[in-house]
Amino acid sequence: MIKFKVAVIQMQISTIKSQNLKKVKEMILRAMEEYSPQMVVLPEMFNCPYENKYFPLFAEEYPGETTNMLSNLAKELQIYIIGGSIPEKDGEQIYNTSFSFNPTGAMLGRHRKMHLFDINVEGGVSFRESDTLGAGGSITVIDTEYCKIGVAICYDMRFPELMRLMALEGAEVIILPAAFNMTTGPAHWHELIKVRALDNQVYFVAASPARDLEASYHAYGHSKIVNPWGDTVVAADEKEGIICGEIDLEFVDKIRQQLPLLKHRRIDRYELKKK
Amino acid sequence: MIKFKVAVIQMQISTIKSQNLKKVKEMILRAMEEYSPQMVVLPEMFNCPYENKYFPLFAEEYPGETTNMLSNLAKELQIYIIGGSIPEKDGEQIYNTSFSFNPTGAMLGRHRKMHLFDINVEGGVSFRESDTLGAGGSITVIDTEYCKIGVAICYDMRFPELMRLMALEGAEVIILPAAFNMTTGPAHWHELIKVRALDNQVYFVAASPARDLEASYHAYGHSKIVNPWGDTVVAADEKEGIICGEIDLEFVDKIRQQLPLLKHRRIDRYELKKK
Repeated sequence: MIKFKVAVIQMQISTIKSQNLKKVKEMILRAMEEYSPQMVVLPEMFNCPYENKYFPLFAEEYPGETTNMLSNLAKELQIYIIGGSIPEKDGEQIYNTSFSFNPTGAMLGRHRKMHLFDINVEGGVSFRESDTLGAGGSITVIDTEYCKIGVAICYDMRFPELMRLMALEGAEVIILPAAFNMTTGPAHWHELIKVRALDNQVYFVAASPARDLEASYHAYGHSKIVNPWGDTVVAADEKEGIICGEIDLEFVDKIRQQLPLLKHRRIDRYELKKK
Repeated sequence: MIKFKVAVIQMQISTIKSQNLKKVKEMILRAMEEYSPQMVVLPEMFNCPYENKYFPLFAEEYPGETTNMLSNLAKELQIYIIGGSIPEKDGEQIYNTSFSFNPTGAMLGRHRKMHLFDINVEGGVSFRESDTLGAGGSITVIDTEYCKIGVAICYDMRFPELMRLMALEGAEVIILPAAFNMTTGPAHWHELIKVRALDNQVYFVAASPARDLEASYHAYGHSKIVNPWGDTVVAADEKEGIICGEIDLEFVDKIRQQLPLLKHRRIDRYELKKK
């Protein structure tokens, strides 16, 4: 199969976990009705407000309420679900974790955000994820029936090394649940997504929560899918909604032949590898 | 010194070498009059049309007519000159080479384009530099009295590994003589420059020839200087002209503190190194 459809759920997150789970289920069902996608992608921290004080309160171990729901939905609807991220509890530690499920409901991958978002921009955003979260240690590339897919979370995108390593491991699509904010979003979101797609010759799927000016953290929104030439396939605005776009793996091959960046790397002169 | 001014000469290239040398000298003198910069940057292949058939005809060994002129001008005007690039002859081989000179006229660095531009986009640009040119093998970071500066050429920018390695070697500015074309220019130029500046927390100076629709290769133009937050300091359109912008090394420090990307790299999990 060389084409498949990916829907992105740009949902608004509430401070009540059960409401978030109810809403995500409704929106996935609506995505199925409207677009019949083979894969659904959720945003970062889709069951929990993006705020340090909520992470310990909303965290759950795997398997848990949220992951069971996603697994069951994937099986029932026979789709892949790239489950955005949730606060995951593992012993004393909490991670910002993305769980992925295949159409049998089996867990395909678990990505724990590798790069924690500790930033303090003068006159702009300030946030320290490391106050409550632990950092993951693994690069995540999952196998699907269509192609390999790299999964990373938000600030992970800032690191070209990680993005490149996923492409070198065979990813033809990179999926990034992410909650950029009103400082970094307008300043960097669109260009980073485009250039990561372009550099690594992949489709790049970025899934943000909707913007909620009542919340303490204002997500940028603007979920989008960009192709390996850097063109936008489909894009949301800042409001709650669903977008759906087609991934064409023949187009990945075509771009990789016409502009052979991955082949032209000077691996005789520099080396990038996992440790 | 924490601030210095960089002028970029976006010149139109003719098929007569002596005319190109005459023009570049005139434009450097004009830049001095108008802006009094401490550094002047020239575009890729500023003494030769960007066409394979001209490279062997215009090539010269170092030291030669063009490099002598640049060295003398640097000394006379007491400025740094980052000499775009020229076809350099070395034995039987020709390289696309950037020579840099300091205010005493001494050669500071010689960068031979590491990644040759071999591309064939359907309905767009087709070019094979490797038909006539050899590839360089070294990463180039030069020392100035202000800071370290990475120098690379055009297609080299497509490779995040090289850009990152220059930053890791201490570059706070990256200078890129480049002749993007009317396929890749509108599609990718601005975003690549912005994201390379942003990722590596450097000022990025990109110097293109002016667009000449009479030439066989239509350069995109749009020379520009972008700061480490990704904002444009100054930008040209497609026509011949000079731009000048200020490099503020305190701003580099400030961005590196507020958004500490270079520190947040997970060097315990991945490694990028020269070979």
